[in-house]
Amino acid sequence: MKQSEIAVVGGGIIGSAIAYYLAKAGFQVDVLEAGEVGSGSTQAAAGMLGAHSEYKEFGTSLYPFARSSQKLYEEAEAAIRSLTGIDIERRTGGLLKLVFKEEERARLLELCSLEGVTWLDHASLTDKTPGLAESVLGAVHMEEDVHVTPAIACNGFRSAAQVLGAEIHTYTRVEKIGKEAGHYQLQTSKGKWQAERVVIASGVWSNSILEQTGLGSSIFPVKGECIAVTNTQAPLRCSLFHDQHYIVPRNNNELIIGATKVENDWTTEPTLGGIQTVMEKARQMLPGIDEMPFRRSWAGLRPQTFDGKPLIGEHPEMKGLFIAAGHQRNGILLAPATGKMIADLLSGNDVSEEWKEAFRVDRPYSNEEVLL
Amino acid sequence: MKQSEIAVVGGGIIGSAIAYYLAKAGFQVDVLEAGEVGSGSTQAAAGMLGAHSEYKEFGTSLYPFARSSQKLYEEAEAAIRSLTGIDIERRTGGLLKLVFKEEERARLLELCSLEGVTWLDHASLTDKTPGLAESVLGAVHMEEDVHVTPAIACNGFRSAAQVLGAEIHTYTRVEKIGKEAGHYQLQTSKGKWQAERVVIASGVWSNSILEQTGLGSSIFPVKGECIAVTNTQAPLRCSLFHDQHYIVPRNNNELIIGATKVENDWTTEPTLGGIQTVMEKARQMLPGIDEMPFRRSWAGLRPQTFDGKPLIGEHPEMKGLFIAAGHQRNGILLAPATGKMIADLLSGNDVSEEWKEAFRVDRPYSNEEVLL
Amino acid sequence: MKQSEIAVVGGGIIGSAIAYYLAKAGFQVDVLEAGEVGSGSTQAAAGMLGAHSEYKEFGTSLYPFARSSQKLYEEAEAAIRSLTGIDIERRTGGLLKLVFKEEERARLLELCSLEGVTWLDHASLTDKTPGLAESVLGAVHMEEDVHVTPAIACNGFRSAAQVLGAEIHTYTRVEKIGKEAGHYQLQTSKGKWQAERVVIASGVWSNSILEQTGLGSSIFPVKGECIAVTNTQAPLRCSLFHDQHYIVPRNNNELIIGATKVENDWTTEPTLGGIQTVMEKARQMLPGIDEMPFRRSWAGLRPQTFDGKPLIGEHPEMKGLFIAAGHQRNGILLAPATGKMIADLLSGNDVSEEWKEAFRVDRPYSNEEVLL
Amino acid sequence: MKQSEIAVVGGGIIGSAIAYYLAKAGFQVDVLEAGEVGSGSTQAAAGMLGAHSEYKEFGTSLYPFARSSQKLYEEAEAAIRSLTGIDIERRTGGLLKLVFKEEERARLLELCSLEGVTWLDHASLTDKTPGLAESVLGAVHMEEDVHVTPAIACNGFRSAAQVLGAEIHTYTRVEKIGKEAGHYQLQTSKGKWQAERVVIASGVWSNSILEQTGLGSSIFPVKGECIAVTNTQAPLRCSLFHDQHYIVPRNNNELIIGATKVENDWTTEPTLGGIQTVMEKARQMLPGIDEMPFRRSWAGLRPQTFDGKPLIGEHPEMKGLFIAAGHQRNGILLAPATGKMIADLLSGNDVSEEWKEAFRVDRPYSNEEVLL
Ligand SMILES: Cc1cc2nc3c(=O)[nH]c(=O)nc-3n(C[C@H](O)[C@H](O)[C@H](O)COP(=O)(O)OP(=O)(O)OC[C@H]3O[C@@H](n4cnc5c(N)ncnc54)[C@H](O)[C@@H]3O)c2cc1C
Ligand SMILES: Cc1cc2nc3c(=O)[nH]c(=O)nc-3n(C[C@H](O)[C@H](O)[C@H](O)COP(=O)(O)OP(=O)(O)OC[C@H]3O[C@@H](n4cnc5c(N)ncnc54)[C@H](O)[C@@H]3O)c2cc1C
Ligand SMILES: Cc1cc2nc3c(=O)[nH]c(=O)nc-3n(C[C@H](O)[C@H](O)[C@H](O)COP(=O)(O)OP(=O)(O)OC[C@H]3O[C@@H](n4cnc5c(N)ncnc54)[C@H](O)[C@@H]3O)c2cc1C
Ligand SMILES: Cc1cc2nc3c(=O)[nH]c(=O)nc-3n(C[C@H](O)[C@H](O)[C@H](O)COP(=O)(O)OP(=O)(O)OC[C@H]3O[C@@H](n4cnc5c(N)ncnc54)[C@H](O)[C@@H]3O)c2cc1C
Repeated sequence: MKQSEIAVVGGGIIGSAIAYYLAKAGFQVDVLEAGEVGSGSTQAAAGMLGAHSEYKEFGTSLYPFARSSQKLYEEAEAAIRSLTGIDIERRTGGLLKLVFKEEERARLLELCSLEGVTWLDHASLTDKTPGLAESVLGAVHMEEDVHVTPAIACNGFRSAAQVLGAEIHTYTRVEKIGKEAGHYQLQTSKGKWQAERVVIASGVWSNSILEQTGLGSSIFPVKGECIAVTNTQAPLRCSLFHDQHYIVPRNNNELIIGATKVENDWTTEPTLGGIQTVMEKARQMLPGIDEMPFRRSWAGLRPQTFDGKPLIGEHPEMKGLFIAAGHQRNGILLAPATGKMIADLLSGNDVSEEWKEAFRVDRPYSNEEVLL
Repeated sequence: MKQSEIAVVGGGIIGSAIAYYLAKAGFQVDVLEAGEVGSGSTQAAAGMLGAHSEYKEFGTSLYPFARSSQKLYEEAEAAIRSLTGIDIERRTGGLLKLVFKEEERARLLELCSLEGVTWLDHASLTDKTPGLAESVLGAVHMEEDVHVTPAIACNGFRSAAQVLGAEIHTYTRVEKIGKEAGHYQLQTSKGKWQAERVVIASGVWSNSILEQTGLGSSIFPVKGECIAVTNTQAPLRCSLFHDQHYIVPRNNNELIIGATKVENDWTTEPTLGGIQTVMEKARQMLPGIDEMPFRRSWAGLRPQTFDGKPLIGEHPEMKGLFIAAGHQRNGILLAPATGKMIADLLSGNDVSEEWKEAFRVDRPYSNEEVLL
Repeated sequence: MKQSEIAVVGGGIIGSAIAYYLAKAGFQVDVLEAGEVGSGSTQAAAGMLGAHSEYKEFGTSLYPFARSSQKLYEEAEAAIRSLTGIDIERRTGGLLKLVFKEEERARLLELCSLEGVTWLDHASLTDKTPGLAESVLGAVHMEEDVHVTPAIACNGFRSAAQVLGAEIHTYTRVEKIGKEAGHYQLQTSKGKWQAERVVIASGVWSNSILEQTGLGSSIFPVKGECIAVTNTQAPLRCSLFHDQHYIVPRNNNELIIGATKVENDWTTEPTLGGIQTVMEKARQMLPGIDEMPFRRSWAGLRPQTFDGKPLIGEHPEMKGLFIAAGHQRNGILLAPATGKMIADLLSGNDVSEEWKEAFRVDRPYSNEEVLL
Repeated sequence: MKQSEIAVVGGGIIGSAIAYYLAKAGFQVDVLEAGEVGSGSTQAAAGMLGAHSEYKEFGTSLYPFARSSQKLYEEAEAAIRSLTGIDIERRTGGLLKLVFKEEERARLLELCSLEGVTWLDHASLTDKTPGLAESVLGAVHMEEDVHVTPAIACNGFRSAAQVLGAEIHTYTRVEKIGKEAGHYQLQTSKGKWQAERVVIASGVWSNSILEQTGLGSSIFPVKGECIAVTNTQAPLRCSLFHDQHYIVPRNNNELIIGATKVENDWTTEPTLGGIQTVMEKARQMLPGIDEMPFRRSWAGLRPQTFDGKPLIGEHPEMKGLFIAAGHQRNGILLAPATGKMIADLLSGNDVSEEWKEAFRVDRPYSNEEVLL
C-alpha cells in the first residue's frame, strides 16, 4: 500500500496549484489524477483572469479573493519559470467589455471607479482594436484582467510542484475514501493508498466522493462550448467580452471564441447548435471573423455550485479532509489563491475569516439566484 | 531517366480510375502524383453518384455519360473487391430531393419520368426518414443515386491498378512537359521522366500544365466547405438534398453536410462564415442536427470549367497527350466513365462521337451561363 | 425517474450487440453508456474474428462459441445492412499465421485438420502476399478468420438496435445499482433510472459495479498498443499474424499494426516503448513497412479475466441481473454470440449447458495459467 | 493588377522576418505565401538557436552571423511583445551537448573557450537534468543556445510586420516571375502582381523560381522526421543534443525529439523507419522516455545548399531581385540576421563585406563536403 503525507485528488489547475503551494510549504504531496493532468475542465477554458469583469457577480467575498489571485499569478509566473523553465503564457493587454447600447454603458461605467478600469470610446477603441464592429459604442477596459493559456498554466504548477518534490500519479482514479485507525484510505484504480490528509480537487466530478463523506450533492456541470479560428487580420491585443461571450487571442494567432452555458449537460462534445451560438456572438463583436479559417471546437464542464462560490475548506466532521472544488467559470483565475489558502489552512497559517466563511463547505443553500 | 509507356499526371479519383482502366486494358502505367493519392479534391467530396439529381444541369450529353458511370460502378465495385479485398463503401438507399414549396414540387415532378425516380409524399417520407423537418412537403426519391466514400473509392481504383501492374509514384510533382524526339519529357520534383503517352488528370491544378501546351486557362476552383456530425438519432438511409446542399450518411454514423460554392477561392480551410451557411441549410432539412456532436470541417476545390462539362480527349496538336480534368462537382460520379473513355481512346476502341464532341478539350467557350 | 424493461450498462460492441439481439427478440431496451458508443476498448481493436487462430487457447468451450459467433456475423452483416444501410466492413481474405522456424511449423500444422485451415508454403505465399519477409517458411491460412472494422461493426449493431426500437443514452454513467421493491434502481450521472432487468456490459470497467453486487473483482486490464501506417506497396489481402502480433489491412489502405500486452496498466496512451515493440514485430513480417508513412497510434484495454473466458450469465443471487463482460482480446469476435446468448437467456430459450457452465459468473478461480 | 513596393515570396520564418525588418525600415511590403504562414519547413523545426553547437560546421563566416542573430532575437522578442502582445516562447536553459565517449569529450572541450560555453561533469549534470542516461560522461553546456517555438516565432514576426503595415496574402502561389518596363511581374494563383523589388524567400521550394532567373538549381531537400512525447518525469530545463539528434522541451511539457536526415526526399510524412531511428537516439540520452506517452510525429524539409551556407543577396543580373533561401537546419536561428541583412541591403545601409561574399547567390560550387 502506498502512503502519502497529503493526497490531492485531481490534477486540474486547482489540484496542481494546491500541489505547488503545499510542496512549497514543505509538505510531501501526491497528486492522484484519474486521467492526465489538466485534461478535465482546465484544458477547455479560455484562461481569462477576469477579476474586474465579474466584479458584480463576485460580490463582497469573491472579488478580493479573485484580486489576490490575480496578484499571486505574477509571483507564480516568475517562480514557475525559475523552477522549470516553463512560461505560463500570461498575456497582457487586458479585457475589453464592449458596449453596444446606452443602457449597457450606464451599467458598466460604474466599474470605472475600480483600480485599473477605464472607459474607451469608439474612436480610441478602433485604433487599438482594428476590425471591431462599427456598432460598438465604446468599452470598459480592464487592464489587469489579463489571460493565460490554461493547460500551460496548469502544467507550470504541476512541473514546479514536481521540482519541489511532489509526485504526480496519472491514470489513478480514486473510487472510495474511508478512514481507518486514524488514516485516510483511498481505493484507486491502481490499488490502495493511505494518506494522513486528503484534499479533494476533482472539479465537477467531486460529488461522487463528497457524497461518501456525507456532504450533499452541491456541484453540477454547466457545459461550455468553444471554437478557435486563425486570425488573419491585424493581431488582437485584448480579450473582447460581451453578454457572457468572448474572444481571446493566443500566441499562435488563434482566437479562442466562447462559450455557451448548458446546465446539467455532462457531454463533452460541442453540438452544432452550440457552435452556431458562439459564432453569432463573436461576429457581432468582430465581423471579419466570418472570413477566418476555422480550426477546432471543444467543450468543457464548469463545476457549478448553488451560490456561485467555490467550496474551499475542511470537512466539518472528517478532520484532515479538505475540499477545493466548484470554481465554476473562474477556476483558472482562482487557482493560485485557492492553492495558497489550502496550504495556509494545512500549515495552520492565518486565513481571512471572511473567506473561510464564504467558501465553507457545509454552508447552507442560499436563496440567491445562481449566477451561471 | 525513368520511362513509362503511359504517364498519368495526378492521382485523384480521375487519375486513379484512368490507371485502373488502362492497366486492365494491358498498358504499362505510371501515376505521378504531387502529394498523396486522393489528397486533392477527392478526399473532400461527399461521394454522391447523382446522375438523376443533376439531370437538368447535365443536359443531353452529360446525363447518359453519368448514367453509364453509375453502372460502371457496380462492375468496378466487384472487380476491386476481388482484386484487392477493398470495399469501396457504395451505400444504397439513394437520394431524396426535398420539396418545401409547391413550385419546387412542380419543377421536380418532371424528373419522375426517369427510370428509378419516384415521388414520396410527406407521410411515406417521414416513415423512411425519421427526424425530417415538418415543413417538407415531400421528396423525389432517386433510388440509383447512391453514394460511395470518395477516398476509399479512389484507393480502391489505385490498389486495383497496382495489382494489375500500374506503379504509383507519390510526392512526384510534374513541373514541365515537353516533347523531344517523339517522346514526352516530364520534369518532376523527383527528376526527369520520359513517356510515350501522357494523361493530364491533375484536377483543378491542371491549368499550369495545360498552358504549357498552348491550351487556354479553362479550369478554375469553386471551393466547397463541409462539416461532419455524429448522428445520434435513428440512422439515415438516404442522402438528403435541397437547394444545392445535402446530408450524406456514412457507415460510422457520421453525417457529411455540405457544401458552399465559392468561386475562384484557392484556400482549402473552411471559414467560419462557410460553416455557418452549411449548418443553416442542414438544419432546415433535419432540425435535430442542432443537438448532434460536431466532428470536423474541411474544404475542397471543385475543378470548374466554363460550360460545366469536363475536358476529356486528346490534345488537338500534341498527339499522345490526353486530358481528363474539370469534373466540377461530379468527379466521383464520373470517374469510371472517364477512366473507361480514356482507356478506349488509347486502345483505339469505339467511343461515342457525341461524348467526344461534348468533352473536346479545345471546344469554344459557349455563352451558356456556367452552372456551379 | 426513467423506466426501462431492460437496461444495458455499457455501449461497447458487447452492449451494442446485446441491445440488437434483445430488440430483435422484442424487448424494450435502453443502453446507458458513460461516454460515446464504442469509445472504450472497442474502438481500439483490430477486429480480427480469429476463431481458428486462437483454437488452442480457446479450449473446448470457447472454440465452438467463437465459431458460432463467426457464423452469426454473416447474418448480422446482412441484417444490419438491410435495417440501417450500414456495411460493417467485414473483409474476407482471412488470416495467415506465419511460420519462421521449423518448430513453429510443427505446432501449427495440427490446426490444418480444422475446417477452412490450410498450409501454404513460401512460394504460394509470396505470390499472394507480395512484400512478405524472405525468412517466412510458410503460413497456416485460416480462411474464415476474416475481420471487421470494430467501431463500424459496433455502430452497426447500435443503429440496427435503434431501428428495432432500442434507445441509446450516451454520457450516462451508471454509478450505483440497487434493488428496491423488486425493481432495479440505477443511479446515473443523468439521474435515477428504474429497470426490471439489467445487463452489465461495461467491459474492463465492470468491476466497480460488480463489486456492489457482491461479486469479487475478476476483471483486470491488459493494455494493448497499436499503430497505423499507409500501405504504399501492393494491397494486403489477408491479416498477418506471428507471435501475438499482427498486421490487419483496412479499406483505406491503412495497415493496423498491434499489439502489446501490458497487464494492470490503466493508461490509454501508447508509450514510446510500446510503439517500438510493435514496429519491430511488424518489420519481421513485412520489412517494407519501414518505408511506409506513419499515421497514428493508440491504446486500448482488454477486459481480462482470471481464466481467459468471459463472464456471461445471471447473477447467482440477484435475479434479473445479467453480466456479459471480460471478453479479453476477443470481444469483437464474440459479440454476436454473446448478444444472442443473453437474449436467449432473457427470453427463456434453450442455451447450451456447456456454455452456461463455462461462462458462469461465479465460477471458481481455476489454477490454469491465464492466457493473455 | 495589384502593386507592391516590395513583394516577399514565401511566408516562412525567413519571409516573415524579412517582412518585419522591411516594414520597420519603412518599406511597403506584401508577403505572397502559397499556403498558410509558417506551414512549410518552419512549423516542423525544433527551434534551437544553436550558434555554438554548430560552431565547427559554421566556419568563419556563418558563426558571427549566427551569433548576431541570437542577439537580435532578444530585441525582436521585446519588440514583438510590445507591438502585438505575442510572446515567441524563447526558453532559456540552453543546450547540453552530451558526451558518451572520451574521444567526444576531447573534441568538444575545445568549444569551452567560446563565451557562454562550459563543461559539466556527470555529477553536476544529473543534478540539473534528472533522468539522464547513466552512461553520459558529461556535457558541454551552451547557455546561450536557447530555443523558441518556431511556428510562434514566425507568427510573431508576421504579426509585428502587419502592425507595422505589411500585408500578408495567404494561398497566393507565385508561379512565374518576369520583368517588364522596369517592373517585376509576378504571375500568381490569385492573378497578376506588379512589384518594384522582389525577395525570394520560399525555402526549399525556391528552385523553380530561381531557375526562371537563370540561377542554377542549388537548393535541395533534406527531410527531417520528429516525434513528440509528454514528459511525465521532472521537467527538462535544457535541450539535449548528441550525434545530430536532440530532445527539446516545450511549455506544455512536450519533448520534441528529432531528427533524421534523408537527402532528396520530398515526402512530408514520417516513415516507420524514421520514427524508429529518432526513438533510439533519444532513448540513449534519456532512457525514461520509453515510458512516456507518444503524442504525434511529423516531418519537414530542410532547404539544403551545396556548401551549407544560405543564399542571401541580390541577383547578379536582375537588379532589385533578392534571394534569401537555403538556411538548411538553421533557418530559425538565422531568421532575424537574414531579415535585417535584407532590409539593410534594400535600404542601402552598410552590410559586412564578409557576409555578402559568403552568402553571394552566384558563388561557385565549392569542393567542401556538404554538411547536412
Ligand atoms: C468553456 C469554458 C471556459 C472557461 N473559461 C475560463 C476562464 O476564462 N477563466 C477562468 O478562470 N475559468 C474558466 N473556466 C472555468 C475553469 O475551466 C474551471 O473552473 C477550472 O478548470 C476548474 O479546475 P479544476 O481543477 O477544479 O477542475 P478540472 O480541470 O476538471 O480538474 C479536475 C481533475 O480531477 C480529475 N478527477 C475527477 N475525478 C477524479 C477521481 N475520482 N480521482 C482522481 N481524479 C479525478 C479529473 O480527471 C480532472 O483532471 C472555463 C470553463 C469552461 C468550460
Ligand atoms: C465539397 C465537395 C463536395 C463534392 N461532392 C461530390 C459528390 O458528392 N459527387 C461527385 O461526384 N463529386 C463531388 N465533388 C467533386 C469531386 O470531388 C471532384 O470532381 C473530383 O474529386 C475531381 O477529381 P480529380 O481526380 O480530377 O481531382 P483531384 O482529386 O484534385 O486530383 C488531382 C490530383 O492531381 C495532383 N496534382 C496536381 N498537380 C499536379 C502536378 N503538377 N503533378 C502531379 N500531380 C499533380 C493533386 O495532388 C491531386 O491529388 C465534390 C467536391 C467538393 C469540393
Ligand atoms: C489493441 C487491442 C486489439 C484488439 N483486437 C481484437 C481483435 O482483433 N479481435 C477481437 O475480437 N477483439 C479484439 N480486442 C478485444 C476487444 O476490443 C474487446 O474484447 C471488446 O472491445 C470488449 O467490448 P466491450 O463492449 O465489453 O467493452 P468496451 O468496448 O470497453 O465497452 C464498454 C463500455 O462501457 C462503458 N462504461 C464503462 N463503465 C460504465 C458505467 N459505469 N456506466 C455506463 N457505461 C459504462 C464504457 O464507456 C464503454 O463504452 C482488442 C483489444 C485491444 C485493446
Ligand atoms: C526536422 C527539422 C528540424 C529543424 N530544427 C531547427 C532548429 O532547431 N533550429 C533552426 O534554426 N532551424 C531548424 N530547422 C530548419 C528550419 O526549419 C528551416 O531552415 C527554416 O524553417 C527555413 O525557413 P524558410 O522560411 O526559408 O522556409 P519555409 O518555412 O519552408 O517557408 C517557405 C515558404 O514559402 C512558401 N512558398 C513556396 N513556394 C512558393 C511560391 N511559389 N509562392 C509563394 N510562396 C511559396 C511555402 O509555402 C512556405 O511557407 C529544422 C528543420 C527541420 C525539417
